[in-house]
Amino acid sequence: MTDRKQVYFFGAGKAEGNAKQKELLGGKGAGLAEMTNLGVPVPPGFTITTEVSVAYMERGAAVIKDIEADVLRSLGEIEKLVGMRFGDAENPLLVSVRSGARASMPGMMDTILNLGLTDETCAGLAKKAGNARFAWDAYRRFVTMYSDVVLGLSREPFEEALDEARREVAQSRGIDPRRTQGEELKRQVPDSEIGEAQLQKLVQKFQAHVLEKTGKPFPQDVREQLWGAIEAVFQSWNNPRAATYRKIHNLPASWGTACNVQAMVFGNMGETSATGVAFTRDPSTGERRLLGEWLPNAQGEDVVAGIRTPRKLSKGTGGPAEETLEFAMPALFNEFNALAQKLEEHFNDMQDIEFTIQEGKLYLLQTRSGKRSGKAALRIAIELVRAGRIDEEEAIMRIDPEALNQLLHPVLDPEVVQRTLPIARGLNASPGAAVGAIVFTADEAERRAGRGEAVILVRTETSPEDIHGMKAAKGILTARGGMTSHAAVVARGMGTPCVAGTSAISVDERKKIVRVALADEVGRNVQTLELREGDVISLDGGTGSVYRGALPLKPAQLSGDYSELMAWADARRTLRVRTNGDTPKDARTARNYGAEGIGLCRTEHMFFGDDRINAMREVIVAETKDERALGLAKLLPFQREDFEGIFREMRGLPVTIRLLDPPLHEFLPHTEEQIAHVAQVSGLSAASIKRRAEELTESNPMLGHRGVRLAITYPEIYAMQVRAILEAAITVQGEGIEVLPEIMIPLVFGKRELQISKEILEAEAKKVFAERGREVRYQFGTMIELPRAALRAGEIAEIAEFFSFGTNDLTQTTLGISRDDADKTFLPVYVAQGILARSPFTSIDREGVGELVRIARDRGRATRPGLKLGICGEHGGDPHSVEFFHDIGLDYVSCSPFRVPIARLSAAQAAIRSKRASKT
Amino acid sequence: MTDRKQVYFFGAGKAEGNAKQKELLGGKGAGLAEMTNLGVPVPPGFTITTEVSVAYMERGAAVIKDIEADVLRSLGEIEKLVGMRFGDAENPLLVSVRSGARASMPGMMDTILNLGLTDETCAGLAKKAGNARFAWDAYRRFVTMYSDVVLGLSREPFEEALDEARREVAQSRGIDPRRTQGEELKRQVPDSEIGEAQLQKLVQKFQAHVLEKTGKPFPQDVREQLWGAIEAVFQSWNNPRAATYRKIHNLPASWGTACNVQAMVFGNMGETSATGVAFTRDPSTGERRLLGEWLPNAQGEDVVAGIRTPRKLSKGTGGPAEETLEFAMPALFNEFNALAQKLEEHFNDMQDIEFTIQEGKLYLLQTRSGKRSGKAALRIAIELVRAGRIDEEEAIMRIDPEALNQLLHPVLDPEVVQRTLPIARGLNASPGAAVGAIVFTADEAERRAGRGEAVILVRTETSPEDIHGMKAAKGILTARGGMTSHAAVVARGMGTPCVAGTSAISVDERKKIVRVALADEVGRNVQTLELREGDVISLDGGTGSVYRGALPLKPAQLSGDYSELMAWADARRTLRVRTNGDTPKDARTARNYGAEGIGLCRTEHMFFGDDRINAMREVIVAETKDERALGLAKLLPFQREDFEGIFREMRGLPVTIRLLDPPLHEFLPHTEEQIAHVAQVSGLSAASIKRRAEELTESNPMLGHRGVRLAITYPEIYAMQVRAILEAAITVQGEGIEVLPEIMIPLVFGKRELQISKEILEAEAKKVFAERGREVRYQFGTMIELPRAALRAGEIAEIAEFFSFGTNDLTQTTLGISRDDADKTFLPVYVAQGILARSPFTSIDREGVGELVRIARDRGRATRPGLKLGICGEHGGDPHSVEFFHDIGLDYVSCSPFRVPIARLSAAQAAIRSKRASKT
Repeated sequence: MTDRKQVYFFGAGKAEGNAKQKELLGGKGAGLAEMTNLGVPVPPGFTITTEVSVAYMERGAAVIKDIEADVLRSLGEIEKLVGMRFGDAENPLLVSVRSGARASMPGMMDTILNLGLTDETCAGLAKKAGNARFAWDAYRRFVTMYSDVVLGLSREPFEEALDEARREVAQSRGIDPRRTQGEELKRQVPDSEIGEAQLQKLVQKFQAHVLEKTGKPFPQDVREQLWGAIEAVFQSWNNPRAATYRKIHNLPASWGTACNVQAMVFGNMGETSATGVAFTRDPSTGERRLLGEWLPNAQGEDVVAGIRTPRKLSKGTGGPAEETLEFAMPALFNEFNALAQKLEEHFNDMQDIEFTIQEGKLYLLQTRSGKRSGKAALRIAIELVRAGRIDEEEAIMRIDPEALNQLLHPVLDPEVVQRTLPIARGLNASPGAAVGAIVFTADEAERRAGRGEAVILVRTETSPEDIHGMKAAKGILTARGGMTSHAAVVARGMGTPCVAGTSAISVDERKKIVRVALADEVGRNVQTLELREGDVISLDGGTGSVYRGALPLKPAQLSGDYSELMAWADARRTLRVRTNGDTPKDARTARNYGAEGIGLCRTEHMFFGDDRINAMREVIVAETKDERALGLAKLLPFQREDFEGIFREMRGLPVTIRLLDPPLHEFLPHTEEQIAHVAQVSGLSAASIKRRAEELTESNPMLGHRGVRLAITYPEIYAMQVRAILEAAITVQGEGIEVLPEIMIPLVFGKRELQISKEILEAEAKKVFAERGREVRYQFGTMIELPRAALRAGEIAEIAEFFSFGTNDLTQTTLGISRDDADKTFLPVYVAQGILARSPFTSIDREGVGELVRIARDRGRATRPGLKLGICGEHGGDPHSVEFFHDIGLDYVSCSPFRVPIARLSAAQAAIRSKRASKT
Repeated sequence: MTDRKQVYFFGAGKAEGNAKQKELLGGKGAGLAEMTNLGVPVPPGFTITTEVSVAYMERGAAVIKDIEADVLRSLGEIEKLVGMRFGDAENPLLVSVRSGARASMPGMMDTILNLGLTDETCAGLAKKAGNARFAWDAYRRFVTMYSDVVLGLSREPFEEALDEARREVAQSRGIDPRRTQGEELKRQVPDSEIGEAQLQKLVQKFQAHVLEKTGKPFPQDVREQLWGAIEAVFQSWNNPRAATYRKIHNLPASWGTACNVQAMVFGNMGETSATGVAFTRDPSTGERRLLGEWLPNAQGEDVVAGIRTPRKLSKGTGGPAEETLEFAMPALFNEFNALAQKLEEHFNDMQDIEFTIQEGKLYLLQTRSGKRSGKAALRIAIELVRAGRIDEEEAIMRIDPEALNQLLHPVLDPEVVQRTLPIARGLNASPGAAVGAIVFTADEAERRAGRGEAVILVRTETSPEDIHGMKAAKGILTARGGMTSHAAVVARGMGTPCVAGTSAISVDERKKIVRVALADEVGRNVQTLELREGDVISLDGGTGSVYRGALPLKPAQLSGDYSELMAWADARRTLRVRTNGDTPKDARTARNYGAEGIGLCRTEHMFFGDDRINAMREVIVAETKDERALGLAKLLPFQREDFEGIFREMRGLPVTIRLLDPPLHEFLPHTEEQIAHVAQVSGLSAASIKRRAEELTESNPMLGHRGVRLAITYPEIYAMQVRAILEAAITVQGEGIEVLPEIMIPLVFGKRELQISKEILEAEAKKVFAERGREVRYQFGTMIELPRAALRAGEIAEIAEFFSFGTNDLTQTTLGISRDDADKTFLPVYVAQGILARSPFTSIDREGVGELVRIARDRGRATRPGLKLGICGEHGGDPHSVEFFHDIGLDYVSCSPFRVPIARLSAAQAAIRSKRASKT
């Protein structure tokens, strides 16, 4: 129903598509077209576009009618080229039907091979190949795949029947089949040893099973087979595996997949046949050498299935030299190597290539940019620049900013991760990987860490009392709490890996047991695993996955390649990158990572130390202004000292300090001992402290008594903070260090609150300057984190010298989503169903939140042309969001220290992207 | 510092201002100017504008300099007219200094009389008046007032010294002063019996006290006195009394007050002097007759102080005829009566007039529109129309829509309320007044009500199990919960008065005691009052006040005047008025009050009945779709039956039904018994039900898993509701009744959610229509209640046929304020400090929320020109908000049944106001 071309043919050196059409043809389809055009030997075929898949999602099977004529025409082209006919009883053409999205999603969607086999064509194939066993084996594989993928039948009865056949073989050889099962049986009796008669019987058994289960015979019409397979490929875009993969890799559900139909070639037609895969460079280090694996007399699926051990492709890459393709088939190896080099030169990138040799003839089945480690990505990009094959900008664009995480944090060995099932998934609250023994208390964490043991602190949720244990632990795992929970915020600040809000675990801190509800693919609880203190687990704070046992860990690795690439990036970006940091240590870390200032110093975290929290609690339970003043006086020296340290670290760079933001009850004592302590110090009864705590409880604290609202009701708190900032600034300035404080007020929704805050500030500043006999320059600004503040930005800018967009809270209020709750309730469903392309807390919602940011920018700058604009939500470290902030002309983004390099690279990419866009 | 005139003179038949300048001169100043121009005898004086007061709030005492010259010039004019001089030792001019805001705020701000008295001028006054006692009494009063108002000293020592003087008199008469104290002493020895020597001694004592407390002598410079008094008047605008008054009466803090300085006249210069007040009509019934009170030989303050009993002004208005002014001074009475009639005719409204007779000469000190009851307001307006003095439009404009509340609900006798201190204040959750005995349980409420007893149900908070008790009670009082709490919502629906979230009370339901923390003026807890079951209290759900004992109750009273005026209003308004109603009873009530449809039928309240809540709980704890379906099947007949009832009541009028909105945990069982019951029915363990409840708990439920999000995660809930609606509609339509259902989806933030909801709806509709073999027409629309929904209104309108603005939630998210919390935390402070003119939950925030409504209107109508726009938040019944909704062109507002007449009148006023504005 569309005018757009829906089916693209490729074959015999000429393709209708090309490598640039990834969006339309998918990665695989575009690669096949390009290879064909390059004269690489590729079996002919055609690609049904991703647009058809999108239409299929909306309109279902009706779209198959629309493409029917085009598909049949292209099928005719294939028949002409290979000299075989689809469904022909004598000389049958077999095809593969494969998915292929814009981005590679290996193994996530469905594939059907050997399509076109029926009882009739199988006989024809047997005759033509002169190998009946080969034909029946192909038919057996096809019926199994088709029954699973298209007809939706369980694989189990098919596997069971196959095992039965294996057991027959085993028995015939005198092996006791009752003692040899599962993988062991498969190793003892590989598929290749199952005979023709057995295979034929299997196919009959399978067909009977299909008839029984579906009420219809296995389809003997090859076109019906084809339409079914195409629909199944389209449907597989939305299978749970693929949906999960997209979620993890931030791919939108709206893309859809292309579908590639291609003439089959066989690597299992005897000893002159083979199949294999290769990289043109080492994907782990980036070193240029042909690295791959192959198997003689095998189909592609055998290489990855792990039953036969694949052999190395080239000499000197591990494994015996005489097993290599280079040794076994030197001419074909050389032909392949030349083609591989040609493809790498053509695409100017490392290629991941699949090939099949059928009876001595080489075919390339796929080429694509190879997945690589962060380290390899850097090395490849820089070597390509040095070789003059790409320019610096292209090198910058080639690096996935998120891949820098692998260089900045320890990571779990990706190869091991790929084949290991996590026992639980939580929120990726703080990146990096950690391996260690489970401990349940902060004290135990400290004790064991003191003995040099690596520990993971596992808690229902953490609280300020756990800080020493969090510092001692290699990683933190919590059952409750979202991305802004205490555990998450503190861990990010410390750079400690953290998985938070892991709802599948329940922690019994008293009995020292953590129970993990193991779930099956569709999320049903199937089993409970109990782990105890000392049991080792591994966790990946970058993905939120938790594993049992010790997975191999790769340390952080910053190379010269990194520095070189980042220098190129910095030269190109216009967006500045600051950091969110609350301590001198954060400041130092971030400065090392290239931060150009502090964009968000949260003052409340300074109140959480052991020595401070009690003074803060005195402030909160105070019933009069005077009592409150006493507690504040105790806090003042701590705050001042923190600020001095931060100002020294950030010499010459701006430091944006946000005055107290969270609701007061976050600081309140929880346990009886804490309440008793506060009661003793404050002279109040424990009962009245409990009552105070209850009074402060709010049904929606996110929309509660916090931020500037505290300044309006308790002006003395902000006054104390302003004093601490200015006293610290005067002291550090007195040491000859340039200080650039920027005082920032949170949660305003209009001008008047800011005005009152400014009056408090200026009154206190006057006093401090008079007392010290010296002054410092400072700026005064505000967060824009409520929709009303964005709308009233024009008048707010009359007072504010800068805006910092608090996109976390702005997202919560604009969309009406509580960040701490939504991850465990409806948000994952919203993303899975494509209602939201991504979590709006990960990547900014451009259409809603983004419009408010643009409105505030326009109105703010209309009032105050030089208004400085930044953003300090979690989005500041997200590449997609950084691009948006660049595009709309903010001055800076601010993110956690470990994401500063990611933001720098993202900002450079955004600048290059908009430069390129303006050229076209 | 402004070009605008700051001081307006009036005197001798000519004034610089007039009655139209209320905004600038305040009500009092404008009235004095107008009276002067009319030739009414008014002591000369001048008015300092409200603009000066606003400037004073910003810049403080500096503004006094700006007005100095103008004030002194005007003072000179007064001196010329009265032939006395300010500060003159022989013939001193005394002045009064009074506040006067745009709207009357009786007694809330400060007044200083007799200003200009010093030791020197006092002697001069004594000599000139030939009455030293009069002069010293005036001086004594002045020093007391000035010390209190300007110097900020406590009144107590002054009162104590005065009492001491009274005791001397008492003793000299043989009364035992130790046995006669307080009010009794004042009655025994009125001020008039304290002698000249005593007064002189008192003044000296007072002056010594001032010197001791302030370190400075009492000011003897009359100009210093004047500037101090003017500043004090300006400052009194922000005193706590005035701020509270403004809050109650919805007056913005930004107005400021004018300051009136006027030559003193004295009603206490002997038996030919007098003072009094009068209304030109009966303020309680509206009947036209001169009604007032007076006292011979008295100052104005004596009339209101309550020590001397004032006499009636006219014969036949109660009290002995020989005590009336009409009898005592017939010529002056006739002169006053003629002036009063002249003023009423001039202003075409009932006047409230203050007068003083000084030695046989009549002065009018103030005239203003008299405050009146709702009933009187209607009668007066309609009589004025009949007399041809105002037109219908003016009559409509004359009625305060809120005053209709007095006609629609029982009210506490306003005269009694005025002199009774509430024991506590909560949220005005549902209007009307109630008097009854305290009960603590729903069962007890039902039992006592069954015996014919009036009861007030007092609870910490209510829950669905309390419904039968809420129905039985005359009123509801809760300690916790906001305007959207269960108690508030249910009470409004029932039309039962309710005061919610009364934080000063704590309810011990077990011991059957409610403790009330009594607070002093500044909110300090001074005493705890304990009330028990059976104790009688009175509450006013319109103001949130709670009183001890039984206050007199006036029943609702709808008269012919009401119907006539509402008919005039309906003929003029263009905005339609619907109601929020969840039951057939609500629908009937609202229809009687003139509702033109239901704008919001909340389906969740239908799940709260005793017989229904358990089925709903089964739905929630269900672990599979099938289990959920079982519970939903039980709910279906209830929902269907409710809808049938509503459709019948609203025949021919549209009924907008909102599908399930609140988070599921609101329905969960709380007590062990409830849990046990659900466990039994559902077959789940109590532990798993508790775990389910814990899982559903959210940190910010307002931003949680509710509204359309439930439809995305549990589509079968909305499907059941749609089925109930359509089945009910088909049934009722089959009875020959026109049904116009409008199905509304809550909490969407974009198009896709609405699309999915529509698919659920249409699939179910198809089934229902097929089953029934009949169809009904319905409309499909959405709430706009999140900022993102307003911004994305363009694409949302592609699907929605109507928008209903949910301004409650839109206010919460736009301003980031939790409605349930803010009233007890920062919001009152925000209003008191003028950061917000009014609570944004009472009256729509035009600048923030209002802009989003306008954006949604523009974008929605750009996509779908005929898009129907309504509003169903609490704002739909607020006159200020209704005006806004009229102005921006919405089609209708929807409010609770009892506010429908208020909205109709407000809509008419808005239409007239914009018609008038377009003419000028």
